[in-house]
Amino acid sequence: MAQLVVERRDVDFVLHEQLEVEKLSKHEKFADFNRKTVDLIISEARSLAIKEMLPALKLGDEEGCRFENGTVTVPEAFQRLYDLLKEGEWIAMCDDPQWGGQGMPTTVSLAAMNYFDGANYPFMLHTILLHGAAKLVETFGTEKQKALYLKKMLSGEWGGTMLLTEPEAGSDVGALTTAAVKNDDGTYTISGSKIFISAGENDLVENIVHPVLARIEGAPAGTDGISLFLVPKICVNDDGSLGDRNDVVCTGIEEKMGIHASPTCSLTLGGKGNCRGTLLGKENKGMRAMFVMMNEARLEVGMQGLGCASASYLNALAYARERIQGRSLQATSKEAPPVPIIQHPDVRRMLLSMKAYTEGMRSIIYYIGWCEDQIRTSSDADEKQKYQGLIDVLTPIGKGYVTDKSFEVCNQGVQIFGGYGYTKEYPQEQLLRDCKITHLYEGTNGIQAMDLLGRKLGLNKGQSYKDLIKEMRDMAETAKTVGGLETLAADVEKAINKLEETALSIGSTARSENMMSAFAHAYSFMEVTGDTVMAWMLLWRAVLATRKLSDGAKKKDLNFYDGQVKSARYFIKSVLPLTLAKADIIIAGDDTVMQISEDAFGSK
Amino acid sequence: MAQLVVERRDVDFVLHEQLEVEKLSKHEKFADFNRKTVDLIISEARSLAIKEMLPALKLGDEEGCRFENGTVTVPEAFQRLYDLLKEGEWIAMCDDPQWGGQGMPTTVSLAAMNYFDGANYPFMLHTILLHGAAKLVETFGTEKQKALYLKKMLSGEWGGTMLLTEPEAGSDVGALTTAAVKNDDGTYTISGSKIFISAGENDLVENIVHPVLARIEGAPAGTDGISLFLVPKICVNDDGSLGDRNDVVCTGIEEKMGIHASPTCSLTLGGKGNCRGTLLGKENKGMRAMFVMMNEARLEVGMQGLGCASASYLNALAYARERIQGRSLQATSKEAPPVPIIQHPDVRRMLLSMKAYTEGMRSIIYYIGWCEDQIRTSSDADEKQKYQGLIDVLTPIGKGYVTDKSFEVCNQGVQIFGGYGYTKEYPQEQLLRDCKITHLYEGTNGIQAMDLLGRKLGLNKGQSYKDLIKEMRDMAETAKTVGGLETLAADVEKAINKLEETALSIGSTARSENMMSAFAHAYSFMEVTGDTVMAWMLLWRAVLATRKLSDGAKKKDLNFYDGQVKSARYFIKSVLPLTLAKADIIIAGDDTVMQISEDAFGSK
Repeated sequence: MAQLVVERRDVDFVLHEQLEVEKLSKHEKFADFNRKTVDLIISEARSLAIKEMLPALKLGDEEGCRFENGTVTVPEAFQRLYDLLKEGEWIAMCDDPQWGGQGMPTTVSLAAMNYFDGANYPFMLHTILLHGAAKLVETFGTEKQKALYLKKMLSGEWGGTMLLTEPEAGSDVGALTTAAVKNDDGTYTISGSKIFISAGENDLVENIVHPVLARIEGAPAGTDGISLFLVPKICVNDDGSLGDRNDVVCTGIEEKMGIHASPTCSLTLGGKGNCRGTLLGKENKGMRAMFVMMNEARLEVGMQGLGCASASYLNALAYARERIQGRSLQATSKEAPPVPIIQHPDVRRMLLSMKAYTEGMRSIIYYIGWCEDQIRTSSDADEKQKYQGLIDVLTPIGKGYVTDKSFEVCNQGVQIFGGYGYTKEYPQEQLLRDCKITHLYEGTNGIQAMDLLGRKLGLNKGQSYKDLIKEMRDMAETAKTVGGLETLAADVEKAINKLEETALSIGSTARSENMMSAFAHAYSFMEVTGDTVMAWMLLWRAVLATRKLSDGAKKKDLNFYDGQVKSARYFIKSVLPLTLAKADIIIAGDDTVMQISEDAFGSK
Repeated sequence: MAQLVVERRDVDFVLHEQLEVEKLSKHEKFADFNRKTVDLIISEARSLAIKEMLPALKLGDEEGCRFENGTVTVPEAFQRLYDLLKEGEWIAMCDDPQWGGQGMPTTVSLAAMNYFDGANYPFMLHTILLHGAAKLVETFGTEKQKALYLKKMLSGEWGGTMLLTEPEAGSDVGALTTAAVKNDDGTYTISGSKIFISAGENDLVENIVHPVLARIEGAPAGTDGISLFLVPKICVNDDGSLGDRNDVVCTGIEEKMGIHASPTCSLTLGGKGNCRGTLLGKENKGMRAMFVMMNEARLEVGMQGLGCASASYLNALAYARERIQGRSLQATSKEAPPVPIIQHPDVRRMLLSMKAYTEGMRSIIYYIGWCEDQIRTSSDADEKQKYQGLIDVLTPIGKGYVTDKSFEVCNQGVQIFGGYGYTKEYPQEQLLRDCKITHLYEGTNGIQAMDLLGRKLGLNKGQSYKDLIKEMRDMAETAKTVGGLETLAADVEKAINKLEETALSIGSTARSENMMSAFAHAYSFMEVTGDTVMAWMLLWRAVLATRKLSDGAKKKDLNFYDGQVKSARYFIKSVLPLTLAKADIIIAGDDTVMQISEDAFGSK
């Protein structure tokens, strides 16, 4: 069972055949990352994931985290895993070597993360926000802040978090009440309560650095008055040594449906009136700074979903090949022997659906990373803006759509195991439970849908969404010329045209006095966009595979390539027609959702 | 929070306005069950559910069941609940008063069960199979078996189970290997292992009666050679007193994703060679006997899903009304105050979707019970056959479709709570976990879909499915004449026509050499049938509500009736178009699912 995390052949396909990451090594920045090096990195990540992280997945779920007297103990096995991550420098894969990073292309780092998250993402949650926090320090920190914190964080010696949410300020960050008062020495005294802080307290690291959103005394209400502060758990002296314990106290951890191995902490800042922090960036520009981290954090959540889906699919596939149950439906004799359940049509349907989504989502997530690499290697401002726009538009898809579909994949992954899927004997039920949080944090998926319609559709006067449409249309055009894919290409083209029509329609309603009705369809719009992006990715894969098949692919690759064409065909023939119907529903714009009175929902 | 189980107004609406259960009291069998009595029953059930069962829901989840030395200890609070169930005679609501039953109409009993299951279905699992087991004894037992067991079981003094599944015989019951050897005294010696037995061992009752499927020595292979046996945990002497401990031993309980308060037991029969049972019914007719119980058991599983959905919806609604978060999207000023989240379009979308499904599913489940009541009160063989056919056709919908949609409702119920929904502070995550098993037991939902296409579509030469179509079409015809519902009625009629076309198409393929391709679309066919049944039920509700509104309904009912029209409109305008598209996919019959080779699913 050891290899059931991520399909290596598919990872290689996306990296080398779809996105051709080796081309990045032509750029001086990535000169070290030729095919051989990339393969080595993925092999190392795979080995670490399978040999070390995967065995701790169930252990972590069972053992969970313990809270006692302000301290949090994580599962015992995690200390070794964390040491291995540090030793392998996996925490700062893409970061600047100046700060201890490996300077890797983002696309390659995502493939490694796919393995890590697929094997044990509750463990990986100990490092994800650490990286985001370090990026904040790198982007907005003073030279002093960078010198004091950055290497310690990117090496993993210190942990890092993100302190946004408060009990009364969740989706509405602007409502936060944590306060900051400037001291004479330029530091700030912070006071407030924060909740839902992943790895906000733990025994893996000697210090934890909290970027904290708070409002400076007298600052405006709402998001315009929010500043960002750096608040270490243990104060850092000017020479870099650790000083006094800061007044940041963990008051408890959440009991949750899943990710039991990841402590979700409540923190009180300044309970004794003595929580000290330094301003990170400019006063009242905290929200803007946080948004810089948002794309990365949301993409990572998408990757967590994909990790669960990848593992659930491979486990289901292996089980369906082994589990003997029931005669073939076609068997004419009652004496016919029972068969592996992969031969039963409804099991195949679930497997093919899981396969198509897992593959398509892998392409979506890696592609977003690849856009980041285009920005990192480009010196052309227009090109940078184009790729940034694609990232911005695709982020709600990579987070909202991908995690929704990942949960559906994990749900089917339970089904294939029958009653066994509900037991803790197999990983399927944990993957489903762990996956569920991805719909909620870093902005609920409803928030993602609002982001797509309210911000991203009109971004750069709509140019970014148009750029996405153009990328998709170009691939459909290409596919039309590939023998055997003509009708699939035509179907995808139809969906792209319909998506464009839908975007115009809902975008126009969103700017009208009926804007609330448009937002009642925002979720569907995210789904229609996501489905079309999925169809694009699968068609793209099918184009490459069909060409390889007609160019005489190696025998060992024939099944894989054939599987690519089948995934595309399944999705385009059995899912995409629903997308068109969903688009028509959006365009029709029924507004019952807004018409119903609050009292008509039910008695109080 | 105490009342957040089931909407009483909606229960009353289905019982008294939609299904007019009082009419049943015209029949001598149900003469006692006039409106006043029915209302009293529902009020009592509601009170028991809310005051006693609901507080034990979370307790049961946390405490779970303990297995030690062959015994199973259930959560402490359950003993009192069980005593209350016994005292109130709730275990045998519909059964013959001769055996201690209350002789209630099935429809009314389902409304009571809706409350019980909505409050604490893991607890109710201790009685569900007990009732099924008792029905087996009543239907197939000898006079002696009935005399010895029936009253003890229906009173709840003894428990009951259903021993079908074995490690290698799950969906394929015919593969079971549990063996029975006839003894000289007419009893049988049983040996084998059974798994996944709900309440197979527990400390609530002094004895447990196991109906066991086993194969008599020399009987044919497969389902044709299966017989049913009655195997008590403690042997019963001829005078009804308890004798020796039988050789049935619990060897363990499953660790599961949810329903922790319900012990899922593994049982070994005849480990010491001394497990005694008596034949129940005829030799080799065990499967047929078990099928008699199947409809009831499957409908009950649907009710469990509905119970979770009902509770999740009411909790979400209450939370959305109370939780203040974010300005209105329409607010023009940044100073605008935050609003209850029920005002946000995407939250309303989720709530209305949850409401429409919960209501529609309630009607589906109660309607199936109402069909049972028609059989119970009819003396016309044709009428009995018609209603039995409707029950048979609707059972896969009431189980498979309803539990699928219930899970989706519970999933949205978590979303509305944001991050809090993932914590154990609120019931939402438990409802989602508990709901998941309903997709798996009593035949996975994939099995339900195969049952619909493979058995039920052609039942009575297709007449039963046609009867269903006719019932639906009659309602659409009626709705066309109701002011304001004309277009909704036309939409539903279109869906019914499309369903009929789809049934003909897939039914014909299922009988052809391409039958495997048809079964690859069986699940979609269940969904299309279910959606159309849902639309029928919601349209029916809207017809009644619209008439009441135009006839001058009481002021306190105006919101409720308006909510009925809105539920129907939402579903018909925002879901049903997808159903038509799904039907077209079935008719198009793409067979990629069968075309893909096993190796192309991924490496081994």
